[in-house]
Amino acid sequence: MFNRICIIGYGLIGSSIARVIRRDRLAETLVCVDGSEAVCRRVLDLGIADKATTDPAEGVVDCDLVILAVPVGAYESVARAIAPALAQGAVVTDVGSVKQAVIAAVQPHLPAHVQFVPSHPIAGTEHSGPDAGFAELFVNRWAIVTPLPDSDIKAVEKITKLWEACGSRIEIMEPRRHDLTLAITSHLPHLIAYTIVGTATDLEEHMKDDVIKFSASGFRDFTRIAASDPVMWRDIFMNNREAVLEIVQRFNEDLTALQRAIRWGDGDQLQAMFTRTRDIRRRVIEAGQADSPHKSPA
Amino acid sequence: MFNRICIIGYGLIGSSIARVIRRDRLAETLVCVDGSEAVCRRVLDLGIADKATTDPAEGVVDCDLVILAVPVGAYESVARAIAPALAQGAVVTDVGSVKQAVIAAVQPHLPAHVQFVPSHPIAGTEHSGPDAGFAELFVNRWAIVTPLPDSDIKAVEKITKLWEACGSRIEIMEPRRHDLTLAITSHLPHLIAYTIVGTATDLEEHMKDDVIKFSASGFRDFTRIAASDPVMWRDIFMNNREAVLEIVQRFNEDLTALQRAIRWGDGDQLQAMFTRTRDIRRRVIEAGQADSPHKSPA
Repeated sequence: MFNRICIIGYGLIGSSIARVIRRDRLAETLVCVDGSEAVCRRVLDLGIADKATTDPAEGVVDCDLVILAVPVGAYESVARAIAPALAQGAVVTDVGSVKQAVIAAVQPHLPAHVQFVPSHPIAGTEHSGPDAGFAELFVNRWAIVTPLPDSDIKAVEKITKLWEACGSRIEIMEPRRHDLTLAITSHLPHLIAYTIVGTATDLEEHMKDDVIKFSASGFRDFTRIAASDPVMWRDIFMNNREAVLEIVQRFNEDLTALQRAIRWGDGDQLQAMFTRTRDIRRRVIEAGQADSPHKSPA
Repeated sequence: MFNRICIIGYGLIGSSIARVIRRDRLAETLVCVDGSEAVCRRVLDLGIADKATTDPAEGVVDCDLVILAVPVGAYESVARAIAPALAQGAVVTDVGSVKQAVIAAVQPHLPAHVQFVPSHPIAGTEHSGPDAGFAELFVNRWAIVTPLPDSDIKAVEKITKLWEACGSRIEIMEPRRHDLTLAITSHLPHLIAYTIVGTATDLEEHMKDDVIKFSASGFRDFTRIAASDPVMWRDIFMNNREAVLEIVQRFNEDLTALQRAIRWGDGDQLQAMFTRTRDIRRRVIEAGQADSPHKSPA
């Protein structure tokens, strides 16, 4: 499928793609770029790259596919670093959870002789690093591809084929619509989970022990989400600011309404709200999105 | 273990206890009381009671154990109804998610010749009704018992033995401490989940389709929690008002701080917060509470 692929950033996502490329022999040569020398050594030990370097410009030489898999805040400096070294006709893609900001950070720096096709696999676990990856991570998950207005159709096809090889279902979407949708389905839930676990972190120690002991009654599910990679999530919130603030505002208004109903003992309003939300769960189940098809590795 | 047991309310929890009683033959006779005639018929079809009636007073006659498993808001009227019919020396327990309000609703109505030992199994799924129950629901889960100051030690032992037979781990706790702990571990997470799913419910239809389609990125976990029984949860919030409002207030302050950090681009504060929360997850895993030991039935 490709001759030489370079993956920049061997975290959960990057190392999972690497495992698919190895398993299905999607490239003659696979090059790892990671800022950490320890990660580079580990990647070679794991056998999920032929070559590893901390220098992005060195890594992308002669590659016909470059996959950017670093935290969103690092895209601009990586794009600057690789731009002079990119091969004629190379296709560049990314896996960032925010699309408008990534496009703005990357596209201006790339030379005219390469094609940039942004993408975002809707997959992940709360674990990080090259050991956390696994080849089945993307199976039956959505991969959203957000081509640019002047994207070459052949380059877009190459990227959709890559995600299909990973087992993903493909959705083509405008970058703006992607960022709004993810603000609701992913960024707000993570922000709320971080908040609720943070609130518990501030409790006195004896209360905290009880909260951990009895966490199975709901709190536990939030701790899993709130264990996600801090730098990755910092960058997401910094780079999808407008959409996140808009949806947090709506959430706040709705929470205030429920808070008020509790304070004034308005049981009818509470019951009506709690009944309405059941319909969304039914539709999630009908859409086949209710259960994780794959367990994350231990 | 008992001669004649009456369970009032054959929902998820009541019908799960009934299945344990049947499996382990914990009583000679098991009586179902449920306000719905359809539920009474279904319970007899399922073979999880010897007798079923919609009349609580009729159901408790000659019983040495009565288990109240109705929504928290219904406890007072049930206590009034059964009080004159309760046998000498009977033990009464409950499964309510709030303890101070349940004690206040039940205890004043019971005659002096019975013992009330409140309890709360920390177990459940998002499913409701007599078909949703299963005998393994309580295995390795906590059952919190909150005896009254004048509770008879033998009556308390009977109730702890009942929960041990269900496979539960027992914790003895003051009612007030129970209500504060559960406000954080259970009531706040449910309120937040209902709110976030409610916020999505108000989106325009085409946005809603996208949210459902891409719900696996975090939102999905909230829809499961927000599918819980509406009447049960209405009653919990109405009956643990002070503790819930106190903890919602803390949550709000913390969310506002994060919102402000996003608006002003304070990445350091976000990263510090997202790093702090990982420690709680580690402690949840160490406490063996990270994963559900039992899948809920389909």
